[in-house]
Amino acid sequence: MSRDDAFAELPEPPYYAVIFSSRRSDGDDAGYARAADRMVELARQQPGFLGVESTRGGDGFGITVSYWSDEDAILAWKRHAEHAATRAHGREHWYRHFELRVARVERAYGKKQHA
Amino acid sequence: MSRDDAFAELPEPPYYAVIFSSRRSDGDDAGYARAADRMVELARQQPGFLGVESTRGGDGFGITVSYWSDEDAILAWKRHAEHAATRAHGREHWYRHFELRVARVERAYGKKQHA
Repeated sequence: MSRDDAFAELPEPPYYAVIFSSRRSDGDDAGYARAADRMVELARQQPGFLGVESTRGGDGFGITVSYWSDEDAILAWKRHAEHAATRAHGREHWYRHFELRVARVERAYGKKQHA
Repeated sequence: MSRDDAFAELPEPPYYAVIFSSRRSDGDDAGYARAADRMVELARQQPGFLGVESTRGGDGFGITVSYWSDEDAILAWKRHAEHAATRAHGREHWYRHFELRVARVERAYGKKQHA
């Protein structure tokens, strides 16, 4: 079975997770999609970035979990100038409501089906 | 603005998150939906359950994050007989691939837009 790119390939815990849940505002889908892609591209270049998983249902409610080696990496990404500017724009224009939780992953396991 | 039920209303950290990401197998959508609803109903009755947020995209990749007061509550839920049986069934029949990560939430913030 080929690799499923929606899943992050992560090291053994501990590491950190930023859990971002959000409800999109109506409109500007193209601008939002472009910025979301750019933020993932940029995040991948940051020291300590481990991976990201993201999904949004047809109702506009979405969850994105990004994974980081440690809290310093999360803080550096938060302070990244382009990310900070996009985030400020997003808060005003793209999200009706969002919640962000920073968590330390302590254990993990998974299962792939093999045909 | 009315409350958006997709969001969990959580206490101040610390608390725990179980991050479950999954890719659905094809088929048995009705059986899966019924079991998923029942598991949420049952989880809400467990001591230490704080809330849950869940979404799945049209591509079948989903993320569910359930929130718990502490690790003992997570362990007790894992051992709950009906949940264990449904989980075993789900692993064989409903998911092509899943990953589960248990994390301690250390800080949190959010924003709602007020019209």
